[in-house]
Amino acid sequence: MNQTKITELQASLQQSGADLAYVADPGRIAYLSGYTSDPHERILALFIPANGDPFLFTPALEIEDAENSSWAYDVLGYLDSENPWEMIKAAILARYPAPKKIALEKNALTLDRFEILQGLFPGCDFSLDITPVLQRLMLLKTDSEIKTMLEAGAWADEAFRIGFNAIKAGVPEAEIVAEIEYQLKRQGVSQMSFDTIVLAGANAASPHGVPGKNQIKENELVLFDLGVVWKGYCSDATRTVAYKEPTAFQKEIYNLTLLAQETAQKAVRPGVTAAELDAIARGVITEAGYGEYFNHRLGHGIGTTVHEFPSLVEGNDLVIEKGMCFSIEPGIYIPGKVGVRIEDCVYVTEDGCVPFTKTPKELQIID
Amino acid sequence: MNQTKITELQASLQQSGADLAYVADPGRIAYLSGYTSDPHERILALFIPANGDPFLFTPALEIEDAENSSWAYDVLGYLDSENPWEMIKAAILARYPAPKKIALEKNALTLDRFEILQGLFPGCDFSLDITPVLQRLMLLKTDSEIKTMLEAGAWADEAFRIGFNAIKAGVPEAEIVAEIEYQLKRQGVSQMSFDTIVLAGANAASPHGVPGKNQIKENELVLFDLGVVWKGYCSDATRTVAYKEPTAFQKEIYNLTLLAQETAQKAVRPGVTAAELDAIARGVITEAGYGEYFNHRLGHGIGTTVHEFPSLVEGNDLVIEKGMCFSIEPGIYIPGKVGVRIEDCVYVTEDGCVPFTKTPKELQIID
Repeated sequence: MNQTKITELQASLQQSGADLAYVADPGRIAYLSGYTSDPHERILALFIPANGDPFLFTPALEIEDAENSSWAYDVLGYLDSENPWEMIKAAILARYPAPKKIALEKNALTLDRFEILQGLFPGCDFSLDITPVLQRLMLLKTDSEIKTMLEAGAWADEAFRIGFNAIKAGVPEAEIVAEIEYQLKRQGVSQMSFDTIVLAGANAASPHGVPGKNQIKENELVLFDLGVVWKGYCSDATRTVAYKEPTAFQKEIYNLTLLAQETAQKAVRPGVTAAELDAIARGVITEAGYGEYFNHRLGHGIGTTVHEFPSLVEGNDLVIEKGMCFSIEPGIYIPGKVGVRIEDCVYVTEDGCVPFTKTPKELQIID
Repeated sequence: MNQTKITELQASLQQSGADLAYVADPGRIAYLSGYTSDPHERILALFIPANGDPFLFTPALEIEDAENSSWAYDVLGYLDSENPWEMIKAAILARYPAPKKIALEKNALTLDRFEILQGLFPGCDFSLDITPVLQRLMLLKTDSEIKTMLEAGAWADEAFRIGFNAIKAGVPEAEIVAEIEYQLKRQGVSQMSFDTIVLAGANAASPHGVPGKNQIKENELVLFDLGVVWKGYCSDATRTVAYKEPTAFQKEIYNLTLLAQETAQKAVRPGVTAAELDAIARGVITEAGYGEYFNHRLGHGIGTTVHEFPSLVEGNDLVIEKGMCFSIEPGIYIPGKVGVRIEDCVYVTEDGCVPFTKTPKELQIID
């Protein structure tokens, strides 16, 4: 449970005159409560009042797990046969008799649930979106969070080591994925932060391609994009390596991507904006004539979920501060030819940044 | 692409007087379009007009994949640096100049996106929720869908075989998970339908426990809950086996769960209701005095996603029809003692049902 952040959220609610907030996203609930769960289509909700104790609302079969987590306040459960919304209404009214303003997490709450809430509390003011407040709370990581994320990063480094060792001619991409996840799980990593990506040759030109039967061939590049969930925090990193001697063209594209990545990473410090970092990396690639092949943003925030606020993208004037954590991942994808992406996630320090992953970024040639 | 279901959806829109529908859920988009993608926080949307050609809206980096899928209509892409909502507005207005009624998928669309839509199309009627229509379309599987789901089920059987073979004293749960996923991935299964669950002894009494370092011990039960994604369709099945001779109590709980599962499965036929099936299984367990330990619904629908409509639960009077596919998964969880769950997903025939998984359900004793 993160009492510091709960208290900060409560302060924000007091300031904006809201009686309570409804947190709906399982990742944000995990962040605040210390309790991680995927409710699928069931209802998992965290209610945080401006004043007083919060409570967690969860399917009955999760109560034991929730109580065994670090969450220290009430846990209310509902059976599949009960009406969760009537129970939520009763639980809220028992604690805060006449709520006038309930803040919502508008980028997580679905429209059907909102309409139910409106029906339960007619006349209540639901205009306040606490998404930005939650995003900001989660954006600035504490030292203890960064320590855990460094551990998650070390597991990503271990995953690269396993994956690079598994490269040889004729091995399908999917088998390298299997090998990485198998070795990690044996070592105690219970979850990847997303489906591990291993793509070889032209297949890597699809930035969200799916690893399959495509086999590793000599003189091709192999792209690894992977991460783990470790103590509730995610890692995410990308390396592209060469199997046997790369062509001059592959080297050119690789080194250009690397230059873009390192130039942006060196530019990270408090005061620079998210858009400026994107422009720095994009400038390097565009100047070399490959701008059209870098067809995604530079990066994204990371923490208890693998993709979170902020987006490092044109138009985002967010000013970078100490404690923010995000990816820097330029890529060049030339359909049918070659795909390269290089990614480190970093945390911002007083005068720069430190990557969570330490695997070298110079082009590695696997023999 | 599923043209039959798109046409059915269009007929429903014509009937309800909507100009077009906005499908937001990636699983439902995959179902209709044949294009599977996880957009994370980006926007992936499928627009289906009552009359005329639908179009897909996706991040630019996904365009190639979308065009290579079975989707036969337009694909519009947006760069991270562009305003997707202005593009969506322009794309809609170019095709359907003055939409008066736009149907929404209210159980997938988030409130913030709804508020943006309202701003883009002031005065437009957004009251119609197409969730029930989509749920019903997806509920009744075609023969070709069932064929694929039988293949996905066969992979779950293969997963059980691998997992049962991996059981021996002292092996941590997480290592059996790793072994299952490794062997499947080597055989070409690129994705599990959820994180594989292997829980031993009292750990299995937490129905959504996480496999960890807990080691397999003699005379304990081991619960496997797993499934794969195969050609876009999911399998999901649970078996509980004994490692070495089980105690009389373990056998009693096991056989009671089995009786509940089989009694419900035999009762499946067109005309019975979802609530009746739940009551049949629950009745068996309650009569034996363990009702309080069966603390979840009997089952859930399955298809392109692992948990979908309908819910087999008290109060759901949905009448079962031929072609519906759902899980039947009673469980008994006695904290600190024993956890048993037995689950088959089935498809409904003219006079009964057929399970997708064939692994025997009598208590298997692993030696």
